[in-house]
Amino acid sequence: MAKISSPTETERCIESLIAVFQRYAGKDGNNFKLSKSEFRSFMNTELAAFTKNQKDPGVLDRMMKKLDLNSDGQLDFQEFLNLIGGLAVACHDSFLKGTPLVKHP
Amino acid sequence: MAKISSPTETERCIESLIAVFQRYAGKDGNNFKLSKSEFRSFMNTELAAFTKNQKDPGVLDRMMKKLDLNSDGQLDFQEFLNLIGGLAVACHDSFLKGTPLVKHP
Repeated sequence: MAKISSPTETERCIESLIAVFQRYAGKDGNNFKLSKSEFRSFMNTELAAFTKNQKDPGVLDRMMKKLDLNSDGQLDFQEFLNLIGGLAVACHDSFLKGTPLVKHP
Repeated sequence: MAKISSPTETERCIESLIAVFQRYAGKDGNNFKLSKSEFRSFMNTELAAFTKNQKDPGVLDRMMKKLDLNSDGQLDFQEFLNLIGGLAVACHDSFLKGTPLVKHP
Protein backbone atom coordinates (compact mmCIF):
# COMPACT_ATOMS: atom_id res chain seq x y z
CA MET A 1 0.00 0.00 0.00
CA ALA A 2 1.34 3.46 -0.97
CA LYS A 3 2.75 5.30 2.07
CA ILE A 4 0.65 8.44 2.71
CA SER A 5 3.03 11.07 4.13
CA SER A 6 1.73 13.89 6.31
CA PRO A 7 1.35 17.22 4.51
CA THR A 8 4.38 19.52 4.38
CA GLU A 9 4.25 23.05 5.79
CA THR A 10 3.69 24.43 2.29
CA GLU A 11 0.85 21.97 1.59
CA ARG A 12 -0.78 22.84 4.94
CA CYS A 13 -0.53 26.52 3.98
CA ILE A 14 -2.30 25.96 0.66
CA GLU A 15 -5.00 23.90 2.40
CA SER A 16 -5.44 26.63 5.01
CA LEU A 17 -5.78 29.37 2.42
CA ILE A 18 -8.56 27.41 0.69
CA ALA A 19 -10.26 26.49 3.99
CA VAL A 20 -10.21 30.05 5.32
CA PHE A 21 -11.46 31.49 2.01
CA GLN A 22 -14.30 28.97 1.85
CA ARG A 23 -15.23 29.52 5.52
CA TYR A 24 -15.96 33.18 4.79
CA ALA A 25 -17.08 32.89 1.14
CA GLY A 26 -19.67 30.27 2.03
CA LYS A 27 -21.61 32.50 4.44
CA ASP A 28 -23.99 34.06 1.88
CA GLY A 29 -24.72 34.28 -1.85
CA ASN A 30 -22.09 32.73 -4.10
CA ASN A 31 -20.22 30.06 -2.13
CA PHE A 32 -16.98 30.75 -4.03
CA LYS A 33 -16.70 34.50 -3.79
CA LEU A 34 -16.34 36.91 -0.89
CA SER A 35 -19.13 39.46 -0.79
CA LYS A 36 -18.42 42.86 0.75
CA SER A 37 -19.76 41.76 4.14
CA GLU A 38 -17.88 38.45 4.00
CA PHE A 39 -14.67 40.36 3.20
CA ARG A 40 -15.28 42.70 6.17
CA SER A 41 -15.98 39.71 8.42
CA PHE A 42 -12.72 38.07 7.23
CA MET A 43 -10.67 41.23 7.77
CA ASN A 44 -12.15 41.89 11.22
CA THR A 45 -11.56 38.32 12.36
CA GLU A 46 -8.62 36.76 10.57
CA LEU A 47 -6.66 39.98 10.17
CA ALA A 48 -8.00 41.90 13.17
CA ALA A 49 -4.48 42.94 14.21
CA PHE A 50 -4.05 44.66 10.83
CA THR A 51 -7.60 46.01 10.60
CA LYS A 52 -7.74 47.49 14.10
CA ASN A 53 -4.57 49.45 13.33
CA GLN A 54 -6.20 51.30 10.43
CA LYS A 55 -7.27 54.81 11.47
CA ASP A 56 -9.37 55.42 8.35
CA PRO A 57 -12.81 53.70 8.55
CA GLY A 58 -12.99 53.62 4.74
CA VAL A 59 -9.85 51.50 4.35
CA LEU A 60 -11.68 48.17 3.96
CA ASP A 61 -13.97 49.50 1.24
CA ARG A 62 -10.97 50.93 -0.63
CA MET A 63 -9.04 47.67 -0.25
CA MET A 64 -12.02 45.71 -1.57
CA LYS A 65 -12.33 48.02 -4.57
CA LYS A 66 -8.62 47.68 -5.36
CA LEU A 67 -8.65 43.89 -5.00
CA ASP A 68 -11.85 43.47 -7.04
CA LEU A 69 -10.04 43.41 -10.40
CA ASN A 70 -13.09 42.47 -12.46
CA SER A 71 -15.34 44.90 -10.54
CA ASP A 72 -18.09 42.38 -9.90
CA GLY A 73 -18.42 43.58 -6.31
CA GLN A 74 -16.99 40.33 -4.98
CA LEU A 75 -13.54 38.75 -4.49
CA ASP A 76 -12.84 35.42 -6.11
CA PHE A 77 -10.09 33.16 -4.79
CA GLN A 78 -7.36 34.66 -7.06
CA GLU A 79 -8.28 38.19 -5.93
CA PHE A 80 -8.23 36.99 -2.31
CA LEU A 81 -4.75 35.49 -2.85
CA ASN A 82 -3.53 38.85 -4.13
CA LEU A 83 -4.46 40.26 -0.72
CA ILE A 84 -2.61 37.52 1.13
CA GLY A 85 0.38 37.91 -1.20
CA GLY A 86 0.48 41.67 -0.68
CA LEU A 87 0.44 41.28 3.10
CA ALA A 88 3.05 38.51 2.98
CA VAL A 89 5.39 40.65 0.83
CA ALA A 90 4.92 43.59 3.23
CA CYS A 91 5.76 41.34 6.20
CA HIS A 92 8.75 39.86 4.34
CA ASP A 93 10.02 43.34 3.44
CA SER A 94 9.99 44.34 7.10
CA PHE A 95 11.73 41.04 7.90
CA LEU A 96 14.37 41.92 5.25
CA LYS A 97 15.15 45.22 6.92
CA GLY A 98 16.05 43.35 10.09
CA THR A 99 18.51 40.73 8.69
CA PRO A 100 21.88 40.89 6.80
CA LEU A 101 21.58 40.19 3.03
CA VAL A 102 24.31 37.55 2.87
CA LYS A 103 25.56 35.34 5.74
CA HIS A 104 29.17 36.35 6.55
CA PRO A 105 31.46 33.28 7.15
CA MET B 1 -0.82 44.98 29.68
CA ALA B 2 -2.14 44.55 26.13
CA LYS B 3 -3.59 41.07 25.57
CA ILE B 4 -1.49 39.22 22.95
CA SER B 5 -3.89 36.93 21.07
CA SER B 6 -2.61 33.79 19.36
CA PRO B 7 -2.16 34.12 15.59
CA THR B 8 -5.15 33.38 13.37
CA GLU B 9 -5.01 30.68 10.70
CA THR B 10 -4.37 33.34 8.05
CA GLU B 11 -1.56 34.93 10.10
CA ARG B 12 0.02 31.50 10.65
CA CYS B 13 -0.16 30.93 6.89
CA ILE B 14 1.66 34.17 6.11
CA GLU B 15 4.30 33.37 8.74
CA SER B 16 4.73 29.88 7.28
CA LEU B 17 5.14 31.17 3.73
CA ILE B 18 7.92 33.50 4.89
CA ALA B 19 9.55 30.82 7.08
CA VAL B 20 9.52 28.19 4.32
CA PHE B 21 10.85 30.64 1.72
CA GLN B 22 13.67 31.76 4.02
CA ARG B 23 14.53 28.15 4.99
CA TYR B 24 15.33 27.38 1.33
CA ALA B 25 16.51 30.83 0.18
CA GLY B 26 19.05 31.00 2.99
CA LYS B 27 20.97 27.90 1.92
CA ASP B 28 23.40 29.60 -0.50
CA GLY B 29 24.19 32.93 -2.14
CA ASN B 30 21.58 35.63 -1.66
CA ASN B 31 19.65 34.91 1.53
CA PHE B 32 16.47 36.40 0.10
CA LYS B 33 16.22 34.72 -3.27
CA LEU B 34 15.84 31.11 -4.33
CA SER B 35 18.67 29.97 -6.59
CA LYS B 36 17.95 27.22 -9.11
CA SER B 37 19.21 24.54 -6.74
CA GLU B 38 17.31 25.99 -3.78
CA PHE B 39 14.14 26.00 -5.90
CA ARG B 40 14.72 22.34 -6.86
CA SER B 41 15.35 21.47 -3.22
CA PHE B 42 12.09 23.23 -2.24
CA MET B 43 10.09 21.50 -4.97
CA ASN B 44 11.51 18.06 -4.18
CA THR B 45 10.86 18.43 -0.47
CA GLU B 46 7.93 20.75 0.23
CA LEU B 47 6.01 19.84 -2.94
CA ALA B 48 7.33 16.30 -3.48
CA ALA B 49 3.80 14.99 -4.08
CA PHE B 50 3.44 17.40 -7.00
CA THR B 51 7.02 17.05 -8.27
CA LYS B 52 7.11 13.25 -8.25
CA ASN B 53 3.98 13.22 -10.40
CA GLN B 54 5.67 15.12 -13.22
CA LYS B 55 6.77 12.78 -16.03
CA ASP B 56 8.92 15.38 -17.80
CA PRO B 57 12.33 15.83 -16.08
CA GLY B 58 12.58 19.37 -17.50
CA VAL B 59 9.42 20.59 -15.76
CA LEU B 60 11.22 22.25 -12.81
CA ASP B 61 13.57 24.19 -15.08
CA ARG B 62 10.62 25.39 -17.19
CA MET B 63 8.64 26.34 -14.08
CA MET B 64 11.62 28.30 -12.75
CA LYS B 65 12.00 30.14 -16.05
CA LYS B 66 8.31 31.02 -16.12
CA LEU B 67 8.31 32.20 -12.49
CA ASP B 68 11.53 34.21 -12.86
CA LEU B 69 9.77 37.33 -14.17
CA ASN B 70 12.86 39.57 -14.05
CA SER B 71 15.08 36.81 -15.51
CA ASP B 72 17.80 37.18 -12.89
CA GLY B 73 18.09 33.41 -12.57
CA GLN B 74 16.61 33.50 -9.07
CA LEU B 75 13.13 33.70 -7.48
CA ASP B 76 12.41 36.53 -5.08
CA PHE B 77 9.61 36.25 -2.53
CA GLN B 78 6.95 37.75 -4.84
CA GLU B 79 7.88 35.32 -7.63
CA PHE B 80 7.76 32.47 -5.09
CA LEU B 81 4.27 33.59 -3.98
CA ASN B 82 3.10 33.45 -7.60
CA LEU B 83 4.00 29.75 -7.53
CA ILE B 84 2.09 29.16 -4.31
CA GLY B 85 -0.85 31.18 -5.64
CA GLY B 86 -0.94 29.23 -8.88
CA LEU B 87 -0.95 25.91 -7.03
CA ALA B 88 -3.60 27.14 -4.58
CA VAL B 89 -5.87 28.28 -7.43
CA ALA B 90 -5.41 24.92 -9.18
CA CYS B 91 -6.34 23.10 -5.95
CA HIS B 92 -9.29 25.42 -5.39
CA ASP B 93 -10.51 24.87 -8.96
CA SER B 94 -10.53 21.11 -8.43
CA PHE B 95 -12.31 21.72 -5.11
CA LEU B 96 -14.91 23.81 -7.00
CA LYS B 97 -15.67 20.97 -9.39
CA GLY B 98 -16.66 18.83 -6.44
CA THR B 99 -19.14 21.19 -4.64
CA PRO B 100 -22.47 22.91 -5.60
CA LEU B 101 -22.11 26.65 -6.46
CA VAL B 102 -24.86 27.86 -4.13
CA LYS B 103 -26.18 26.12 -0.99
CA HIS B 104 -29.76 25.01 -1.64
CA PRO B 105 -32.11 25.69 1.39
